[in-house]
Amino acid sequence: MRAPLAFSLALSLAAFSAVLAADAAGEACAAPAVPLPLPLTLDGVSPTVKAAEYAVRGRLLDRSVELSALLAAGASLPFSQIVRCNIGNPQALGQKPLSFVRRVLSLLMNPELLEAPPPAYPADVIARAKLYAAAVPSVGAYSDSQGIAVVREHVAEFIASRDGFPSSPSDIFLTDGASAGVKALMQLMIRGPHDAVLAPIPQYPLYSATAAMLNGTLAGYYLDEATSWGVVEAELRRALARAVDKGATARALVVINPGNPTGQSLPKEVVEMILRFAASEGLVLMADEVYQENVYGDAPPFYSFKRALAELRLAGEKGDAAAASLAARAQLISFHSTSKGFIGECGLRGGYFELQNIPDDVKAQITKLASVSLCSNVVGQFATGLMVRPPREGEPSHAEYSAERAAILASLAKRATHTAAVLNSLPGISCNAAEGAMYLFPQLHLPPRAVAAAEAEGAKADEFYALRLLEATGLVVVPGSGFGQADGTWHFRTTFLPPDDQLEDVLKRLAVFQRDFMAQYE
Amino acid sequence: MRAPLAFSLALSLAAFSAVLAADAAGEACAAPAVPLPLPLTLDGVSPTVKAAEYAVRGRLLDRSVELSALLAAGASLPFSQIVRCNIGNPQALGQKPLSFVRRVLSLLMNPELLEAPPPAYPADVIARAKLYAAAVPSVGAYSDSQGIAVVREHVAEFIASRDGFPSSPSDIFLTDGASAGVKALMQLMIRGPHDAVLAPIPQYPLYSATAAMLNGTLAGYYLDEATSWGVVEAELRRALARAVDKGATARALVVINPGNPTGQSLPKEVVEMILRFAASEGLVLMADEVYQENVYGDAPPFYSFKRALAELRLAGEKGDAAAASLAARAQLISFHSTSKGFIGECGLRGGYFELQNIPDDVKAQITKLASVSLCSNVVGQFATGLMVRPPREGEPSHAEYSAERAAILASLAKRATHTAAVLNSLPGISCNAAEGAMYLFPQLHLPPRAVAAAEAEGAKADEFYALRLLEATGLVVVPGSGFGQADGTWHFRTTFLPPDDQLEDVLKRLAVFQRDFMAQYE
Repeated sequence: MRAPLAFSLALSLAAFSAVLAADAAGEACAAPAVPLPLPLTLDGVSPTVKAAEYAVRGRLLDRSVELSALLAAGASLPFSQIVRCNIGNPQALGQKPLSFVRRVLSLLMNPELLEAPPPAYPADVIARAKLYAAAVPSVGAYSDSQGIAVVREHVAEFIASRDGFPSSPSDIFLTDGASAGVKALMQLMIRGPHDAVLAPIPQYPLYSATAAMLNGTLAGYYLDEATSWGVVEAELRRALARAVDKGATARALVVINPGNPTGQSLPKEVVEMILRFAASEGLVLMADEVYQENVYGDAPPFYSFKRALAELRLAGEKGDAAAASLAARAQLISFHSTSKGFIGECGLRGGYFELQNIPDDVKAQITKLASVSLCSNVVGQFATGLMVRPPREGEPSHAEYSAERAAILASLAKRATHTAAVLNSLPGISCNAAEGAMYLFPQLHLPPRAVAAAEAEGAKADEFYALRLLEATGLVVVPGSGFGQADGTWHFRTTFLPPDDQLEDVLKRLAVFQRDFMAQYE
Repeated sequence: MRAPLAFSLALSLAAFSAVLAADAAGEACAAPAVPLPLPLTLDGVSPTVKAAEYAVRGRLLDRSVELSALLAAGASLPFSQIVRCNIGNPQALGQKPLSFVRRVLSLLMNPELLEAPPPAYPADVIARAKLYAAAVPSVGAYSDSQGIAVVREHVAEFIASRDGFPSSPSDIFLTDGASAGVKALMQLMIRGPHDAVLAPIPQYPLYSATAAMLNGTLAGYYLDEATSWGVVEAELRRALARAVDKGATARALVVINPGNPTGQSLPKEVVEMILRFAASEGLVLMADEVYQENVYGDAPPFYSFKRALAELRLAGEKGDAAAASLAARAQLISFHSTSKGFIGECGLRGGYFELQNIPDDVKAQITKLASVSLCSNVVGQFATGLMVRPPREGEPSHAEYSAERAAILASLAKRATHTAAVLNSLPGISCNAAEGAMYLFPQLHLPPRAVAAAEAEGAKADEFYALRLLEATGLVVVPGSGFGQADGTWHFRTTFLPPDDQLEDVLKRLAVFQRDFMAQYE
């Protein structure tokens, strides 16, 4: 019999003998005084798992859950509700689902309902449900691992219509949200600590957490706060050179556009620059475009990396050999999701990625990865289809759908602008305009005494701030350190998702808190 | 500018100069004769990903897709349809979803339907939908990463009622099918090649594929085909000793009960033996119990590992110190899923695992892993709730639910028995009775000439057989080598899921094929 190392080390000899005696005799005897060590303790958890951090659902959220419980128990707090601005979760903050989407899904969910649809359901709802129902044996059956063919066709048509260039269903993989696709692709590429992925700072921490879990290297490039969180080529080159200097092979470049947590929308020229940079440097470009429908006001309109690649290819076909050469080796994976945009179906976990210039034998490895998980959830797959193919003009659901869409986007734009304006009016805060996505990432100009008070508590200054903000206002934000930020700067990420009435209330409490906080520490 | 290694090695100097010249001049020129290498080719894919194998959706399935296309195009083949017995996917083979489950889900899917439910919907359907709808802001919102509280409560009550011992919602995590949970827990434990997981041979290849992707070691223990694929303690000890001899630290022991691909249902005494073995050897026990509702005829009834642990604990409380000591360090993770049983909702991707004796700081790491993926899909979470809490006696849906349940289980049992009988009546096949799950794993007694013919094609003998079977009959099975098997033996896995009329037809074709095959090679 093997004596596990931890066992023999941690157990006193007396207790050990007692256990052996009991084992040998098979008799009842007094329990040993020293408890036996467990096979799996924190010490034995994989260090790559322990190294992963995911601040969006971290300590602040835990504390907010405790405060919610206190409120529910009737405790008197300085606020009457917790407002969770830590995560882009629109339907948790009052956004209504799109009627067309949910009507079709309700029919798909129950075959007897599809036989006799509710009288109020328009004909295009029923037609779409019938089309999708005919494409699978049941929403309760595993689908193809790559995803349901008709949905992949609808995705390809959406991309083609968005960009003006063709897209092939065979390049599309349907996923549980965008996250599952990102994780699979990083798993495909990262072989160990010598493999680096370039990713923005600040960044949505899925990338850093996944790199940590894969024991890979994350090489950060800084976004330029002074130019609306711009992506600057010299900084990309610096980050790449630094990774190479340290002995790493850079495999991929992550770009989040529109940005998370930073909310910028990249102009066409910057998108083109990034694509050329990645292709010329031999990096697979991972384009996180889940906020592509969330661009507000006079910000640069969304310009997809796929379109930039197609334009480069076209230039090559027209005789530009350098463009042809770059386009031929530009490898691109573009991610999208049902969780954001104006559909906001986070809980349904729908999404896709599109591959460009990925060889068939690599694609087969991706399919194999997908098949080990069998398939992404079928309801999420159909939700993806409904996102990319809304009712068209002339179809009975079109007017209602358009009105719902317009109202959601207008409200988001208004809340984005208003929240940024309030933040900028407060002492000790400066905030870039919200060009896109669902977030603001204001900079905190914390007085040195506040930083010192945080240090005295062993906390980062932005965590110290965010915890106090929560205790005073019920507002849950995420400290900037959860996303990365330039040394010596402090930020927080907040969504602008609460409905108008809640938002007004929250911003008022935030303003009071901020003035008090600054007065206290200045 | 960095010149990537593969780039400089593979590119001819002439082409390289041409590219540099074009780059430098920024002008159009003729494309280089040698195409530039891509950043990501199969060579650069992570070797751990490449090493993973998942035969359930492998070469046989690909060929079946080609044959389907031929049939659709009007080709004349020896069969009129492909029958996919490669995967336990009941609703793909005609099993109807449970009415209660789908009615509730259809209401959850569309809030306006919940306001005015279809007149045919019984009151308990509406009540359950209201209960679940009130527990979340929307099925379109991210839930808690661990899973929706009310569903975890329902799961805990189900386990308590099944086993006669308490279960805590705080020990339950809701997952996208069982697979997501298995992968997360293996990721938690496997730190590298020196960490081994003991798993059965034959086994469902999720475990081997995941171990490969995590660069861990899979230490196989053989199931005893002669005793209905029994788990034998001496063989567990042999496998453990062999792993330790090779320098590995065994971290976990995987048991699949009822078995996949082998279909056995383990008797109570064997479950107890395995639990004691794992606890005394310091192994975390991973109990894959997704087929717990699928036990047929006079096979040993399902006996959960959780119950075995609770009984051990109880013996300890009654004064058996050895039992108390073992129970205190027995770490158990039990997996369940909506995909199997009689609910068969594979596509909804619902499931859960229950932790026992896992310290809170380790549990926090599991929660963090879950949070990086945000949450499992909310529809699947509610499907899990509906699985574990069916309508009760006296509730309006109870009679219909019970009738649907009984019909599905009776039909499965009948098909299991019948399929095994037909297989055993054929030359060159012997098959254990189907005690549980959805599979038979018959042994093929292949004539040496058939093995030689396979070798001549560079194929494994069971793959050679399965491909011929497919070409002759349209029946898709999985070669035994995809699950592992004792050296020199050949098997295949088949589900017994096709509906009665299809099954009869398939079995007739199989019988003809088998006699011809044996005659050809004997």
